[in-house]
Parts: sequence; structure tokens; C-alpha cells
Amino acid sequence: MTIPPTTPAGVLELLPAEQATHDAMLDTIRQGYRRFGFPPIETPAFEHTAVLLTKSGGETERQVYYVQSAGSREQGDYPDLALRFDLTVPLARYVAEHEQSLAFPFRRSQIQRVYRGERPQRGRYREFYQCDIDVIDRDELSLRHDAEVAATVISILSDLAIGKITLRLNNRRLMRTLLGKYGIEGDDAQADALREIDKLERRGREAVERSLVDNGGDAAGVSSLLDLIEQPVVGPSAIRGTLDGLSGANATGGADELAEVIATMQALGVPDDSYVLDLSIARGLDYYTGTVYETYLDDHPELGSICSGGRYDDLAGQYTTTRLPGVGLSIGFTRLFWQLREADLLPSGSPPVTVAVTLLDESDLSYSLGIAASLREAGISTETQMVPDKLGRQLKTAGRRGTAIAVIAGEDERTRRTAALKDLRSGEQIEVPVETLAQEVEKMMRKVGP
Amino acid sequence: MTIPPTTPAGVLELLPAEQATHDAMLDTIRQGYRRFGFPPIETPAFEHTAVLLTKSGGETERQVYYVQSAGSREQGDYPDLALRFDLTVPLARYVAEHEQSLAFPFRRSQIQRVYRGERPQRGRYREFYQCDIDVIDRDELSLRHDAEVAATVISILSDLAIGKITLRLNNRRLMRTLLGKYGIEGDDAQADALREIDKLERRGREAVERSLVDNGGDAAGVSSLLDLIEQPVVGPSAIRGTLDGLSGANATGGADELAEVIATMQALGVPDDSYVLDLSIARGLDYYTGTVYETYLDDHPELGSICSGGRYDDLAGQYTTTRLPGVGLSIGFTRLFWQLREADLLPSGSPPVTVAVTLLDESDLSYSLGIAASLREAGISTETQMVPDKLGRQLKTAGRRGTAIAVIAGEDERTRRTAALKDLRSGEQIEVPVETLAQEVEKMMRKVGP
Repeated sequence: MTIPPTTPAGVLELLPAEQATHDAMLDTIRQGYRRFGFPPIETPAFEHTAVLLTKSGGETERQVYYVQSAGSREQGDYPDLALRFDLTVPLARYVAEHEQSLAFPFRRSQIQRVYRGERPQRGRYREFYQCDIDVIDRDELSLRHDAEVAATVISILSDLAIGKITLRLNNRRLMRTLLGKYGIEGDDAQADALREIDKLERRGREAVERSLVDNGGDAAGVSSLLDLIEQPVVGPSAIRGTLDGLSGANATGGADELAEVIATMQALGVPDDSYVLDLSIARGLDYYTGTVYETYLDDHPELGSICSGGRYDDLAGQYTTTRLPGVGLSIGFTRLFWQLREADLLPSGSPPVTVAVTLLDESDLSYSLGIAASLREAGISTETQMVPDKLGRQLKTAGRRGTAIAVIAGEDERTRRTAALKDLRSGEQIEVPVETLAQEVEKMMRKVGP
Repeated sequence: MTIPPTTPAGVLELLPAEQATHDAMLDTIRQGYRRFGFPPIETPAFEHTAVLLTKSGGETERQVYYVQSAGSREQGDYPDLALRFDLTVPLARYVAEHEQSLAFPFRRSQIQRVYRGERPQRGRYREFYQCDIDVIDRDELSLRHDAEVAATVISILSDLAIGKITLRLNNRRLMRTLLGKYGIEGDDAQADALREIDKLERRGREAVERSLVDNGGDAAGVSSLLDLIEQPVVGPSAIRGTLDGLSGANATGGADELAEVIATMQALGVPDDSYVLDLSIARGLDYYTGTVYETYLDDHPELGSICSGGRYDDLAGQYTTTRLPGVGLSIGFTRLFWQLREADLLPSGSPPVTVAVTLLDESDLSYSLGIAASLREAGISTETQMVPDKLGRQLKTAGRRGTAIAVIAGEDERTRRTAALKDLRSGEQIEVPVETLAQEVEKMMRKVGP
């Protein structure tokens, strides 16, 4: 009697070839965050339940996974631990716990898995990677960091080589000003209205317009606001023009903030065509207070926002009396990876292993192991056949594994002190001296690589 | 009222500077595993409880962390999920689940955290990294892979630059043969005896000798066996000599196996002084059937084995009827990191961020951001000061963060199109043209680096 070997529902487990692509993409994000000066931290997968559930709403609480040791369960205790459901609550706890040891502004990246007991469905995961960056300061944080965070993610998403992306910018303070101007006043009504606006694409203009009027908006004002919302503004000078127009009337705060963010993005050298002002981006979460961003693939808007974030007034009010304003964003990586795979858009060129050194005859073993050693010396990922077997079978196995190149060295090659390099992707085969083997492998990798 | 922001007991959470060292070491292991052709896989943090607890004994079951969604808990269900307590059970499930899609011999590395509800104590963690490699084949797996796995870990531990290490080799089949020869027969008695021998260093010779005699061993035989056990054999020719002596009598199997492993290690170019035959290494776990290894720092044996593993006859008998022999090992990384930190042996030279570009005056902003952009272009991890501040304060903040180098560019430098590079570790400061800034940073990093 064997037990069925299956993963739980709602996780993404990959075969080695896909894992290599997955990891190469994650590495690109990691290196990118590092390049922009966001050093990584890691927090435990579980936190105290009291820490995790302090300010979360009903939905989060329903989705949380409790963690309990066998002993604690036997005693009938309420679970003291739960798996993190995002990286923001652990960050808040981290900053509050280590406040005295950190230098502010505190910058960090964090690439870890998070857990949510959602109903499993295609592309929705119960365990998934988030890739976050945040900058946090005490009392006050320059708006320029809002631009820095945007510049970082625009650069990194372009490194990923998954097609042109556009960052959509907005400011919740500006939205509130505009809503107030058109008759929707009070925090709750405005928060409702912003949530409605966030659903514009899904629910259509008519439904949103009706709901805004129901919330107290005057019909003409709401209509002109929606005109504005439906027309993203492209490029820094057009954005500046629009903002000037808006701040002419009662609008304050938000428009000035956005103007400073745009100016800093220009100073940071962010390409003009990589971001737009999009007043429809209001980000449901009430958590954000100023700048908000979402990011879309130009050619695949149907994939939704692959990276979202914004500015918040106070990160960790539930754990410390220090006010900690910050700005950050998060790439929902597992969902992105799954979507790109579904759409056949995954970048290629990251084999799980670069070279397989074959072995045809027992007498070739030490020559073959010597070749492998020299390739590894050059940092090339190399596996070796340890017992002789038919060449065809070895090439087939290497191909199935997704290995890029086979090195074949039998008696003839050994006599000539050469080896044959076979590109398992194109079928091309060349014979090269052992001295230049590593360079030739690298050359061959560049040829078919991305 | 704020909630105390604390991590649960038994986790290792690091500040960014230590995290950078931690991650650089893990990267060395990751790159090393890749170099030797062990591509990474990842499995979910939780598995079905039925999958996880199938063959584990009482202690594992007591230490397991159950995972349960809020909904499932409310319904009073028995938890269907639990956190993995090692990477071997998930590997067995993975290979059995994906058997049809994998190419054999199947090779994989896996670097992930595992979870055990142990009593918290210094250096014992409830969440910790394991770094595993394994090679698995169907029906039969060449002994040469036992050598390959040993060669891989010897190379990687040397890359870590934490001091000279020695791999101690033994073979459980050989031990059983020797025990039988000296009167300790039967699987249970031999398993007991091997567990006793594994405790030799802690419990002393006398206690172990008594227990072996109690298990049926003849006194003279046990004494000569312990003589042998207490004297590790250094270098391949001495090892071969010892093995020849042993196989002269009734000894079979084990000695021949060890001889082949040693010969393959030589062919793989493993330095002769990096491994010894040590008959005291018997590895408590009955799981292993042939080759076993442990690995110690020469200068710090008190740290215990930092990497252990061996050969097993069948990986996944509980999930599949295919026989899957394999060989593998595991580095208990979190414990190793903690021990090296306690002993002040952590390798240096991995700052969380390499360069901090300072900003002295608003008018320098675009020059300063341009410098940062050019450093990032060269792949250098760079953070920028976004609002002008006193230089002393900026340098102090960068120093507290563990940043390696500050770039200072005020009006004078801007006019000369230069920048000052200040090594925050040594205090050295030089002025260089902006064109060569990236190279000069790299030069400075090499100077004080590891």
C-alpha cells in the first residue's frame, strides 16, 4: 500500500527546466533591487498570531493559515502562530522590533513566499512569491523616494525581457481633492468612491458613474471626472500640463506631489514613454495615502497589474508610537510567472544545467572527468556521466533534462586532445581543443541564448 | 495600546548587514551545487499530513507543525497540512509524483527552510535552512555518485572560506560486516551498535565498549574494532591499505564499495588531504545503507558536523513501487551560520550595499543621480541620498548600514567632472574622474574585500 504522492492544492511546483527559468527571473529581480540599493532581508514564515492579525480585516483573517505544534494542538491551545499572508505586516513588525538598530531612511527588499487560504482556482495560489521593496523614514520621508521606487521597478521589469511595460501613476490625495470638488465628501464616501473607480475597467463606466452619483457626486462633475479618468496622460510634459490645469481650481496637495515625483523620475533618467498618469488607478486598499502605482505589460493588459504599490503615512502604528511614513511596491511573482507561462511568454535561455559531459567507454573516464573539472573551474554548470552508456541514450537524457550542450570525448578526441561540443537545442556540433573548451561553451550559449 | 513587535522563539532573523553575509554564503553554496550539475528545485513549505508523516518515527511526529486554514479549524477538522521538517521527504514525494516527467539519474539541489517544533535553545532553530543535493536512479545507482556528492561538498565548503574542512567517510555495510565478525549479529543489534558508535566522542570509549559487549560482541574483537574506530585513516593510499587488510577476513561489500568511492574521488581531483576514513562515523539514522559522510572544520571540531549524508537503498518506497536508490547530503546552514557567528568566523566582504552616493546641495542632485546611474549601469549596488543633508550625518548613516564606499561629489567635483571615493571601512579617500568611477569602486572593493 503506497500513499498517493501529491502536492496540496494551490501551490506551484515546477520541474527542473521550468524552475531554472523561474529562478533566473527571480534572480533578475533580486539583482535589480540590489543595484538600486535595496538590500535584502528575510523574516520567518510564521509570526505570532497577535502580531499578524492586529489590523487586518475580515477577509485576511478568514484566509490566514494557523500553525501549531503537535504538543500545543494536543493541549487544545488557540494557535499562537500563523503563516504570513504578505510581506508588509512582517516588515512593519521588523522595523518596529529593530528600530534602534536600523539606519533611517530604512531601505529593504524582500523576496519570500506568502500564504493565503484562498479558494484554489487557476492562477490563484495559496503559496506564492512576493518581491517587495520599501523605503521608510521616521516622521517624514521625501517624495523623491516615490520616484525612486518607480524608477527601480521600471528598470527591473525591463531587465526581465518580457515585453514593454508601462507604469501607471496616480495620487490618492489628488483623487480625494477632485472627489470633494465634485460633491463626494467625507472619508468613507471618498474611500467607497475610490474603490469603485478602481473597478472601472471591469464594471464599465455606467455602473461606476451611477455609484459615484449615489455617493453624493454631482452628475456633471462626475462625468467630467470620469472623462479625465478614462484618458491616461502620456509623458512628463503632458502630465505636467494636466496637473497644472487641475491645481488651478481647489485642487491642492496631490497635484503638487505628483509633479515632484514626475520631475524626480526625469532626473533619475526614467524613459519618458515608460509611465503615464492614470487617474483610474486608485488601488482599492485604503492603506495608501498619496502616490499609487500599477504596472502593465503593453501587449498584454489582460494579465492585469504585475506590480503595485504606493505611499503610506504610517507603517507600524500598531507596534510602535514612532510615525513611520514609507513608500513601496510588490511584484506578485508566482502569478506573473504562471501568467507568462500560460501566454507562452516566458523568457528562454536558462537551462537547468549548461553542459553534460558524456562517457562512452570506461577508459575515457579520467579524460572526461578532467574536462568536467576544467569547465567547472570556469564556473560552467556541468554534469558528468559516471558510467559508460550508449551515446544516443546519454544525449536523450540530457535533452529531456533541458541541458543546453553535450560534450562528447571518445578515444579519437582524447588522442587529439579535443572534444566535440553538441548544441542540444540547434543540433550544431563542432570539435574544439580542450584548452578553449570553456570559451567555446560560453560562445555557444550566447548564440542561442536570450 | 501597541502590540509588542517580536518574532516567535526559535527563529534566526538578521539585520541587513548580517543578512548580506548570510546570503553571500548561501549563494556560494547555490552556485557550487549548480557548478556540479545539481539544478535547483523548490517544493511547497507544507505537504499533506498523510504524505509527511508516513514513515517518520515518534520524535518527528511530536515536532511537526500542523498548518490549518481558519475555515478548516472552525470546522474542527484534523489538520490536512503540515510544514516540512526536512527536504528528504518532500524529495521522495516529488520524485514519486513526477517520476514520468523526470530524467534518471535524477539530480537536484534544494535550498529551503524546514520547520521543527523543537524546544528552543541556543543554536537550535525551529525554522532553519537546509541545503541538500541528491542523485537518484531507478533500480540501481553507480557508487561513483557517492564520490561525486563528496567531491561537490568538499569543493563548496572550501569556496565558503571558513577554514580547512575534512570529510569523514565510512560505510554502514562495512560496519555491519565487522560487527558480525565480532559477534554482534542481527539487524536490530547491529543498528543499536551503530547508534552507540556514533556517540563515541560524547560518551567515551568505556561506555560504548560495554554496550557493544552487552549487545553480544566478544570483548577482544570489540576492543580491536574500537582501536580501529578511534584511529581515522588519512589519504587514499593509507585508506586502501586499511581496506585491503579488512577485506582479507570475512569482510565483503562495504570495503569494496569504499575502495571504489575513494578511487573515483581521486579521478575527480579531490585533494588527498581533504578526506579520511573514519569508522566512528556511523550516522545514527538507519535510513543510510552504504556510504556515509560527515564534515568538520579542522580548527573547530567542536562545531560538530556541518554537512552529513550518505547512500540509501530506496528513497520513496512509501509512495511508489519503483525502487529508487540514491545518495545525497545536507548542509544545516542556519546552525552553521549561527555557529560561525558565535565563533567570530563569518567571512567578511559582502556589504548589504556597495556604494552610497551623497548629496550636499540641491544643485548637485542631477550630477549625483547621474553618477548613481552610471554605477548601476556597471552592476554596482548603489543607493542615493535624495535630499541634501550634512555630509557627516550621511557618512554616519551609510556606515551604520554597513555600506562599503561613499561617493562624495559637491560643486568642486562637479566642475572638475570627478568624484571623491571614500572607503568607509579603511577611511581611505581618493578623487577620480567620473568616467573611471565604476572601475575604481571595483578596485577599492577588491582591496578590503575577502
